[in-house]
Amino acid sequence: MGQTTRQIVLKRFIDGAPSPNDFEIVERTLPDLQEGEFLVRNILVSVDPGTRARLSGKPSYIPPLRLGDLVGAFSIGEIVESRHPKFAAGDLVALAEGWSEHLISKGRGFIRRITDRRLPLSAWLGVLGVSGMTAWFGLHRVAGIREGQTVVVTSAAGAVGSAAGQIARLNGCRVIGVAGGPDKCGWLTGAARFDAAIDYKAETDLEAAVRSAAPDGVDILFDNVGNHMIDRVIPSMNPNGVIVVSGQVAAYNTDDAPGLMNTRAFITHRLKMQGLVVFDDLPQWSEAERRMADHVAAGEIAWRDEITDGLESVPEAFAGLFRGENRGRRLARLAPDPFEAEMA
Amino acid sequence: MGQTTRQIVLKRFIDGAPSPNDFEIVERTLPDLQEGEFLVRNILVSVDPGTRARLSGKPSYIPPLRLGDLVGAFSIGEIVESRHPKFAAGDLVALAEGWSEHLISKGRGFIRRITDRRLPLSAWLGVLGVSGMTAWFGLHRVAGIREGQTVVVTSAAGAVGSAAGQIARLNGCRVIGVAGGPDKCGWLTGAARFDAAIDYKAETDLEAAVRSAAPDGVDILFDNVGNHMIDRVIPSMNPNGVIVVSGQVAAYNTDDAPGLMNTRAFITHRLKMQGLVVFDDLPQWSEAERRMADHVAAGEIAWRDEITDGLESVPEAFAGLFRGENRGRRLARLAPDPFEAEMA
Repeated sequence: MGQTTRQIVLKRFIDGAPSPNDFEIVERTLPDLQEGEFLVRNILVSVDPGTRARLSGKPSYIPPLRLGDLVGAFSIGEIVESRHPKFAAGDLVALAEGWSEHLISKGRGFIRRITDRRLPLSAWLGVLGVSGMTAWFGLHRVAGIREGQTVVVTSAAGAVGSAAGQIARLNGCRVIGVAGGPDKCGWLTGAARFDAAIDYKAETDLEAAVRSAAPDGVDILFDNVGNHMIDRVIPSMNPNGVIVVSGQVAAYNTDDAPGLMNTRAFITHRLKMQGLVVFDDLPQWSEAERRMADHVAAGEIAWRDEITDGLESVPEAFAGLFRGENRGRRLARLAPDPFEAEMA
Repeated sequence: MGQTTRQIVLKRFIDGAPSPNDFEIVERTLPDLQEGEFLVRNILVSVDPGTRARLSGKPSYIPPLRLGDLVGAFSIGEIVESRHPKFAAGDLVALAEGWSEHLISKGRGFIRRITDRRLPLSAWLGVLGVSGMTAWFGLHRVAGIREGQTVVVTSAAGAVGSAAGQIARLNGCRVIGVAGGPDKCGWLTGAARFDAAIDYKAETDLEAAVRSAAPDGVDILFDNVGNHMIDRVIPSMNPNGVIVVSGQVAAYNTDDAPGLMNTRAFITHRLKMQGLVVFDDLPQWSEAERRMADHVAAGEIAWRDEITDGLESVPEAFAGLFRGENRGRRLARLAPDPFEAEMA
């Protein structure tokens, strides 16, 4: 008889901003563990805006969910039973299965074993997870970041943006963050040590604010927002500038997102714009993760988590992301960290 | 006493489509030749859509013209008098000075001496000039073209587009050209040996036409038109596809050009879009020019010229470019080719 668990499934396709009522918590019995599988009890699950892309019923870079499907998400859990030769009970793993209290994995696809316990578990769902690696490979592989450049990061207080800005700072760049509201901007120039922060909600002329914050021009725009934001930064970009398209949050909930207007500058300023999906970088992942972990352990990268309690908290936490109310990466705790429990 | 000459100057700033009345032919006396200068008698001058960018009075990647300024253009001429140590009377040169019967050059900036007389002079203002080199470096440097790829070229019957498509074909790629009207499309699949041509004027669903012509998807889009055209091709693009932004003809005459809408595909399909200005490639120019000249001499690259007579023909020929009436690169002959005259 398989493990009984609770999980969050998609109740209706989402058109526009997500609501908690788009989801449903169901109790399910997992199948018996087969040879080559292991059973995970999730400790932390992530609540990411990127999940939105699969919830409309329309195709994206990963197939859309059907109604009743487990909603995909990253999580960290402890293996409670294993019939897989390379994973053992007690191992901590990060995986990409979904919002579920228990999961069965075949150890394929995106899966990372966590052995470096210098850092809190939540770090492995943020700066050392997909968010931090997106920032890392966006700046290193796509933008070819070099010391002395000026880097603008949008949605800069978010998980990807705050990692991008701080990686840029550690590479000797001048870093300008764009975020909404004094709390986020204060955190950027405070704990996260950005050189400057622009509160887009307070600026009537964002284009002028960027120009004024970047008197020597912008070499790299690391964008998580979308075309409207990119268009405000392009007029400040230096020749051969690079726009890293990391996310288009502004377009997730609408088909009417504005087009990119300043495309003539691609010729006049020899701009490059390139998107990335971080899973293309799996072969280089361990090396990047190790270097990031050293930075984090040395206290050189700040982040903020908002950890809510229990699977029940997830739908509302997710919907809140699209109202911009989060002040850090959102996670939900489904079970205590066994390591912290030992220490206590 | 300096050389008396005739030249075309800008009479009024252009807002919208150019008209012949925006220009004026004036007679001027050039200054006396100084040490380090030479005097050129132009044989052929080019009539390029790219000239439009400097005629609105607004800044571009090169400074805008003032009223009364000589209109910039590429030309080929014979040196009739030289006080420059590296250039001699009788030399043929390609240079970027303007629509003038005579020019004084200091031998700086863009200047190429023409010594390979296997080919008609007009080739050096087309496939072996800036147009052909834009195609060459756009495909090689920006797109990293590889054998077996599928390449879509827009404004494919134009000087840059037809060179791009044929360079792609010589690299073992499947080449699809987009052009307006049966004459241009017939020339593409005929003399220019494109694999397929799409008549955008005859297609009600350009996006479907591209998909049907490229069943294996598009790896490289070499675009000379603008966002509306790019948006029709993006849905067919393969992962890691490259969009070369070579020109934005659709935007030259208007501030209301449409924005680029399909930017989400930059993430989902890991697209890269990059612009180029070919003068950045001057260090590699001679090598590229030599390889292109061999292709042209071997009859592997077709092109069409429309050569009108005299400086008087230039303003009307230029205005006609923006009505799409040209069937090849437009040039005006201001003097006989001395080599052809010798042969006759």
